[in-house]
Amino acid sequence: MDRYILSVLVNNHSGVLSRIAGLFSRRGYNIDSLSVGETEDEKISRMTIVVRGDTHVLEQITKQLEKQVDVLHVQVLHANEGVFRELVMVKISTTQETRPLVVELADIFKAKIVDVDTQTVTVELTGEPDKISAFFRLVDPYGIKEIVRTGLTAIGRSNTTINDMRPSSK
Amino acid sequence: MDRYILSVLVNNHSGVLSRIAGLFSRRGYNIDSLSVGETEDEKISRMTIVVRGDTHVLEQITKQLEKQVDVLHVQVLHANEGVFRELVMVKISTTQETRPLVVELADIFKAKIVDVDTQTVTVELTGEPDKISAFFRLVDPYGIKEIVRTGLTAIGRSNTTINDMRPSSK
Repeated sequence: MDRYILSVLVNNHSGVLSRIAGLFSRRGYNIDSLSVGETEDEKISRMTIVVRGDTHVLEQITKQLEKQVDVLHVQVLHANEGVFRELVMVKISTTQETRPLVVELADIFKAKIVDVDTQTVTVELTGEPDKISAFFRLVDPYGIKEIVRTGLTAIGRSNTTINDMRPSSK
Repeated sequence: MDRYILSVLVNNHSGVLSRIAGLFSRRGYNIDSLSVGETEDEKISRMTIVVRGDTHVLEQITKQLEKQVDVLHVQVLHANEGVFRELVMVKISTTQETRPLVVELADIFKAKIVDVDTQTVTVELTGEPDKISAFFRLVDPYGIKEIVRTGLTAIGRSNTTINDMRPSSK
Protein backbone atom coordinates (compact mmCIF):
# COMPACT_ATOMS: atom_id res chain seq x y z
CA MET A 1 0.00 0.00 0.00
CA ASP A 2 1.24 3.44 -0.89
CA ARG A 3 1.57 6.45 1.32
CA TYR A 4 -0.07 9.73 0.34
CA ILE A 5 0.22 13.23 1.69
CA LEU A 6 -2.82 15.45 1.29
CA SER A 7 -2.82 19.16 1.90
CA VAL A 8 -6.38 20.41 2.45
CA LEU A 9 -7.52 24.02 2.80
CA VAL A 10 -10.74 24.32 4.82
CA ASN A 11 -12.90 27.00 6.37
CA ASN A 12 -12.06 27.24 10.04
CA HIS A 13 -15.49 26.02 11.22
CA SER A 14 -16.44 23.71 14.03
CA GLY A 15 -17.40 20.37 12.50
CA VAL A 16 -15.15 20.39 9.44
CA LEU A 17 -12.52 18.19 11.05
CA SER A 18 -15.06 15.61 12.17
CA ARG A 19 -16.66 15.44 8.71
CA ILE A 20 -13.32 15.05 6.97
CA ALA A 21 -12.06 12.40 9.37
CA GLY A 22 -15.41 10.63 8.87
CA LEU A 23 -14.93 10.50 5.09
CA PHE A 24 -11.77 8.48 5.60
CA SER A 25 -12.99 6.18 8.35
CA ARG A 26 -16.23 5.26 6.56
CA ARG A 27 -14.01 3.78 3.82
CA GLY A 28 -11.84 2.00 6.37
CA TYR A 29 -9.00 4.31 5.38
CA ASN A 30 -6.82 4.81 8.43
CA ILE A 31 -5.14 8.17 8.89
CA ASP A 32 -1.46 7.73 9.82
CA SER A 33 -1.13 11.29 10.97
CA LEU A 34 -3.03 14.52 10.76
CA SER A 35 -2.07 18.02 11.70
CA VAL A 36 -4.24 21.06 11.41
CA GLY A 37 -3.49 24.68 12.14
CA GLU A 38 -4.43 28.19 11.04
CA THR A 39 -2.97 29.65 7.87
CA GLU A 40 -1.96 33.19 6.92
CA ASP A 41 -5.73 33.84 6.80
CA GLU A 42 -7.25 33.12 10.22
CA LYS A 43 -10.59 32.12 8.69
CA ILE A 44 -8.87 29.28 6.84
CA SER A 45 -7.16 26.21 8.29
CA ARG A 46 -4.84 23.84 6.54
CA MET A 47 -4.73 20.13 7.22
CA THR A 48 -1.92 17.81 6.32
CA ILE A 49 -3.16 14.23 6.23
CA VAL A 50 -0.92 11.19 5.76
CA VAL A 51 -2.75 8.06 4.65
CA ARG A 52 -1.86 4.63 3.37
CA GLY A 53 -4.06 2.87 0.88
CA ASP A 54 -5.17 2.11 -2.60
CA THR A 55 -4.85 4.79 -5.36
CA HIS A 56 -8.38 4.22 -6.58
CA VAL A 57 -9.91 4.75 -3.14
CA LEU A 58 -7.74 7.83 -2.65
CA GLU A 59 -9.09 9.33 -5.87
CA GLN A 60 -12.64 8.74 -4.65
CA ILE A 61 -11.88 10.35 -1.31
CA THR A 62 -10.22 13.34 -2.97
CA LYS A 63 -13.31 13.90 -5.10
CA GLN A 64 -15.60 13.59 -2.09
CA LEU A 65 -13.41 15.99 -0.13
CA GLU A 66 -13.59 18.57 -2.92
CA LYS A 67 -17.40 18.40 -2.85
CA GLN A 68 -17.59 19.39 0.83
CA VAL A 69 -18.87 22.95 1.36
CA ASP A 70 -16.08 23.94 3.70
CA VAL A 71 -13.24 22.38 1.71
CA LEU A 72 -11.58 25.04 -0.43
CA HIS A 73 -8.83 23.02 -2.07
CA VAL A 74 -7.23 19.58 -1.96
CA GLN A 75 -3.70 18.93 -3.13
CA VAL A 76 -1.91 15.58 -3.23
CA LEU A 77 1.77 16.30 -2.60
CA HIS A 78 4.50 14.11 -4.05
CA ALA A 79 7.91 13.64 -2.49
CA ASN A 80 9.82 15.84 -4.93
CA GLU A 81 7.33 18.72 -4.92
CA GLY A 82 7.36 19.62 -1.31
CA VAL A 83 9.24 20.06 1.91
CA PHE A 84 8.01 17.56 4.50
CA ARG A 85 8.71 18.00 8.17
CA GLU A 86 7.58 16.62 11.49
CA LEU A 87 8.26 17.78 15.03
CA VAL A 88 8.78 15.14 17.69
CA MET A 89 9.60 15.32 21.37
CA VAL A 90 11.17 12.25 22.94
CA LYS A 91 11.76 11.53 26.63
CA ILE A 92 14.77 9.26 26.96
CA SER A 93 15.89 7.35 30.08
CA THR A 94 19.35 8.39 31.20
CA THR A 95 21.80 7.73 34.01
CA GLN A 96 24.75 9.92 34.96
CA GLU A 97 26.84 7.76 32.62
CA THR A 98 24.52 7.71 29.59
CA ARG A 99 23.34 11.32 29.70
CA PRO A 100 26.39 12.75 27.86
CA LEU A 101 25.96 10.09 25.15
CA VAL A 102 22.33 11.03 24.60
CA VAL A 103 23.20 14.74 24.55
CA GLU A 104 25.91 14.04 21.97
CA LEU A 105 23.46 12.18 19.71
CA ALA A 106 21.03 15.10 20.04
CA ASP A 107 23.81 17.48 18.93
CA ILE A 108 24.61 15.38 15.88
CA PHE A 109 20.94 15.48 14.86
CA LYS A 110 20.70 19.22 15.60
CA ALA A 111 18.04 18.36 18.16
CA LYS A 112 17.35 20.63 21.14
CA ILE A 113 17.27 19.56 24.78
CA VAL A 114 13.98 20.92 26.14
CA ASP A 115 13.93 19.29 29.60
CA VAL A 116 16.34 17.43 31.88
CA ASP A 117 15.57 15.60 35.10
CA THR A 118 17.43 13.04 37.24
CA GLN A 119 16.49 10.05 35.11
CA THR A 120 15.43 11.54 31.78
CA VAL A 121 16.39 13.92 29.00
CA THR A 122 13.67 15.30 26.72
CA VAL A 123 14.69 16.20 23.21
CA GLU A 124 12.95 18.20 20.45
CA LEU A 125 13.74 17.16 16.89
CA THR A 126 12.44 18.16 13.46
CA GLY A 127 13.02 16.54 10.13
CA GLU A 128 11.82 14.21 7.44
CA PRO A 129 10.47 10.82 8.57
CA ASP A 130 13.77 8.99 7.76
CA LYS A 131 15.84 11.29 9.95
CA ILE A 132 13.38 10.89 12.82
CA SER A 133 13.39 7.09 12.51
CA ALA A 134 17.20 7.08 12.54
CA PHE A 135 17.25 9.11 15.76
CA PHE A 136 14.72 6.80 17.42
CA ARG A 137 16.85 3.79 16.45
CA LEU A 138 19.97 5.32 17.99
CA VAL A 139 18.42 6.33 21.31
CA ASP A 140 16.28 3.21 21.64
CA PRO A 141 18.98 1.24 23.56
CA TYR A 142 18.89 3.87 26.35
CA GLY A 143 15.13 3.50 26.70
CA ILE A 144 12.47 5.64 25.05
CA LYS A 145 9.96 6.55 27.76
CA GLU A 146 7.63 8.77 25.78
CA ILE A 147 7.16 10.11 22.27
CA VAL A 148 4.89 12.88 21.04
CA ARG A 149 4.83 13.79 17.39
CA THR A 150 2.91 16.39 15.44
CA GLY A 151 2.40 14.33 12.33
CA LEU A 152 3.91 15.38 9.05
CA THR A 153 3.34 18.84 7.69
CA ALA A 154 4.13 19.88 4.13
CA ILE A 155 4.69 22.97 2.00
CA GLY A 156 5.19 23.12 -1.76
CA ARG A 157 8.58 24.07 -3.22
CA SER A 158 9.26 27.17 -5.38
CA ASN A 159 7.45 30.51 -5.52
CA THR A 160 3.94 29.13 -5.96
CA THR A 161 1.57 28.57 -3.05
CA ILE A 162 -1.41 26.32 -2.54
CA ASN A 163 -3.61 29.40 -3.04
CA ASP A 164 -2.20 29.94 -6.54
CA MET A 165 -3.46 26.46 -7.44
CA ARG A 166 -6.88 27.02 -5.92
CA PRO A 167 -9.73 27.30 -8.37
CA SER A 168 -11.38 30.72 -8.09
CA SER A 169 -14.85 29.18 -7.90
CA LYS A 170 -14.85 28.83 -4.10
CA MET B 1 -12.51 32.40 27.01
CA ASP B 2 -9.62 30.30 28.19
CA ARG B 3 -7.30 28.16 26.16
CA TYR B 4 -6.82 24.50 27.07
CA ILE B 5 -4.37 21.91 25.91
CA LEU B 6 -5.54 18.31 26.00
CA SER B 7 -3.29 15.33 25.55
CA VAL B 8 -5.32 12.26 24.60
CA LEU B 9 -4.07 8.68 24.23
CA VAL B 10 -6.20 6.63 21.82
CA ASN B 11 -6.16 3.26 20.13
CA ASN B 12 -4.87 3.73 16.60
CA HIS B 13 -8.15 2.75 14.93
CA SER B 14 -9.91 4.16 11.92
CA GLY B 15 -12.86 6.21 13.18
CA VAL B 16 -11.45 7.40 16.51
CA LEU B 17 -10.42 10.81 15.17
CA SER B 18 -13.81 11.44 13.62
CA ARG B 19 -15.66 10.49 16.83
CA ILE B 20 -13.43 12.70 18.98
CA ALA B 21 -13.66 15.68 16.64
CA GLY B 22 -17.43 15.13 16.62
CA LEU B 23 -17.62 15.36 20.43
CA PHE B 24 -16.20 18.87 20.25
CA SER B 25 -18.17 20.12 17.25
CA ARG B 26 -21.54 18.90 18.58
CA ARG B 27 -21.02 21.28 21.49
CA GLY B 28 -19.97 24.11 19.21
CA TYR B 29 -16.48 23.85 20.66
CA ASN B 30 -14.05 24.89 17.95
CA ILE B 31 -10.68 23.16 17.86
CA ASP B 32 -7.88 25.72 17.40
CA SER B 33 -5.40 23.07 16.45
CA LEU B 34 -5.03 19.34 16.54
CA SER B 35 -2.09 17.11 15.88
CA VAL B 36 -2.06 13.36 16.01
CA GLY B 37 0.76 10.91 15.54
CA GLU B 38 1.94 7.48 16.64
CA THR B 39 3.52 7.01 20.06
CA GLU B 40 6.30 4.71 21.28
CA ASP B 41 3.64 1.97 20.95
CA GLU B 42 2.46 1.81 17.32
CA LYS B 43 -1.00 0.60 18.35
CA ILE B 44 -1.52 3.82 20.29
CA SER B 45 -1.76 7.35 18.94
CA ARG B 46 -1.55 10.56 20.87
CA MET B 47 -3.56 13.66 20.06
CA THR B 48 -2.79 17.13 21.23
CA ILE B 49 -5.88 19.31 21.00
CA VAL B 50 -5.94 23.05 21.64
CA VAL B 51 -9.39 24.45 22.37
CA ARG B 52 -10.84 27.70 23.58
CA GLY B 53 -13.97 27.74 25.68
CA ASP B 54 -15.75 27.58 28.97
CA THR B 55 -14.30 25.47 31.84
CA HIS B 56 -17.62 23.82 32.57
CA VAL B 57 -18.07 22.61 28.99
CA LEU B 58 -14.46 21.44 28.93
CA GLU B 59 -15.09 19.28 31.99
CA GLN B 60 -18.10 17.72 30.28
CA ILE B 61 -16.10 17.01 27.16
CA THR B 62 -13.24 15.50 29.14
CA LYS B 63 -15.68 13.15 30.88
CA GLN B 64 -17.29 12.17 27.57
CA LEU B 65 -13.87 11.59 26.04
CA GLU B 66 -12.88 9.29 28.88
CA LYS B 67 -16.01 7.21 28.30
CA GLN B 68 -15.10 6.45 24.67
CA VAL B 69 -13.96 2.85 24.11
CA ASP B 70 -10.83 3.78 22.21
CA VAL B 71 -9.76 6.62 24.50
CA LEU B 72 -7.14 5.35 26.95
CA HIS B 73 -6.33 8.52 28.84
CA VAL B 74 -7.06 12.24 28.81
CA GLN B 75 -4.78 14.79 30.41
CA VAL B 76 -5.33 18.55 30.60
CA LEU B 77 -1.89 20.15 30.50
CA HIS B 78 -1.18 23.46 32.19
CA ALA B 79 1.47 25.92 31.08
CA ASN B 80 3.98 25.14 33.85
CA GLU B 81 3.66 21.35 33.63
CA GLY B 82 4.69 20.80 30.08
CA VAL B 83 6.88 21.70 27.16
CA PHE B 84 4.77 23.10 24.32
CA ARG B 85 6.06 23.33 20.80
CA GLU B 86 4.79 23.91 17.32
CA LEU B 87 6.47 23.53 13.95
CA VAL B 88 5.69 26.07 11.25
CA MET B 89 6.93 26.56 7.72
CA VAL B 90 6.58 30.05 6.24
CA LYS B 91 7.12 31.11 2.63
CA ILE B 92 8.22 34.74 2.59
CA SER B 93 8.40 37.08 -0.43
CA THR B 94 11.92 38.34 -1.04
CA THR B 95 13.85 40.45 -3.53
CA GLN B 96 17.62 40.46 -3.99
CA GLU B 97 17.71 43.32 -1.49
CA THR B 98 15.44 41.87 1.21
CA ARG B 99 16.63 38.23 1.09
CA PRO B 100 19.67 38.81 3.38
CA LEU B 101 17.41 40.60 5.88
CA VAL B 102 14.98 37.66 6.01
CA VAL B 103 17.85 35.17 6.33
CA GLU B 104 19.27 37.22 9.22
CA LEU B 105 15.92 37.18 11.04
CA ALA B 106 15.76 33.41 10.53
CA ASP B 107 19.22 33.07 12.09
CA ILE B 108 18.22 35.12 15.12
CA PHE B 109 15.22 32.83 15.67
CA LYS B 110 17.33 29.69 15.05
CA ALA B 111 15.04 28.93 12.14
CA LYS B 112 16.21 26.85 9.18
CA ILE B 113 15.99 27.82 5.51
CA VAL B 114 14.35 24.84 3.80
CA ASP B 115 13.81 26.25 0.31
CA VAL B 116 14.92 29.28 -1.71
CA ASP B 117 13.65 30.45 -5.07
CA THR B 118 13.91 33.68 -7.06
CA GLN B 119 11.12 35.46 -5.22
CA THR B 120 10.72 33.51 -1.99
CA VAL B 121 12.52 32.03 0.99
CA THR B 122 10.85 29.21 2.95
CA VAL B 123 11.74 28.92 6.62
CA GLU B 124 11.16 26.18 9.21
CA LEU B 125 10.73 27.35 12.79
CA THR B 126 9.83 25.62 16.04
CA GLY B 127 8.92 27.12 19.36
CA GLU B 128 6.23 28.19 21.76
CA PRO B 129 3.32 30.18 20.31
CA ASP B 130 4.78 33.54 21.49
CA LYS B 131 8.06 33.00 19.66
CA ILE B 132 6.23 32.01 16.49
CA SER B 133 3.96 35.06 16.63
CA ALA B 134 6.99 37.31 17.10
CA PHE B 135 8.65 35.84 14.02
CA PHE B 136 5.49 36.29 11.93
CA ARG B 137 5.29 39.94 13.05
CA LEU B 138 8.89 40.58 11.99
CA VAL B 139 8.67 39.00 8.55
CA ASP B 140 5.16 40.30 7.80
CA PRO B 141 6.44 43.55 6.17
CA TYR B 142 8.27 41.49 3.50
CA GLY B 143 5.09 39.60 2.63
CA ILE B 144 4.01 36.23 4.02
CA LYS B 145 2.90 34.15 1.04
CA GLU B 146 2.06 30.89 2.80
CA ILE B 147 2.03 29.38 6.28
CA VAL B 148 1.67 25.74 7.32
CA ARG B 149 1.69 24.84 10.98
CA THR B 150 1.44 21.52 12.77
CA GLY B 151 -0.61 22.73 15.69
CA LEU B 152 0.80 22.65 19.20
CA THR B 153 2.19 19.45 20.62
CA ALA B 154 2.98 18.93 24.29
CA ILE B 155 4.95 16.66 26.60
CA GLY B 156 4.95 16.69 30.40
CA ARG B 157 8.03 17.87 32.33
CA SER B 158 10.11 15.68 34.68
CA ASN B 159 10.62 11.89 34.73
CA THR B 160 6.95 10.93 34.64
CA THR B 161 5.09 10.10 31.43
CA ILE B 162 1.44 10.19 30.45
CA ASN B 163 1.44 6.38 30.79
CA ASP B 164 2.42 6.65 34.46
CA MET B 165 -0.76 8.66 35.01
CA ARG B 166 -2.94 6.29 33.07
CA PRO B 167 -5.39 4.26 35.10
CA SER B 168 -4.64 0.54 34.74
CA SER B 169 -8.30 -0.25 34.04
CA LYS B 170 -8.01 0.20 30.27
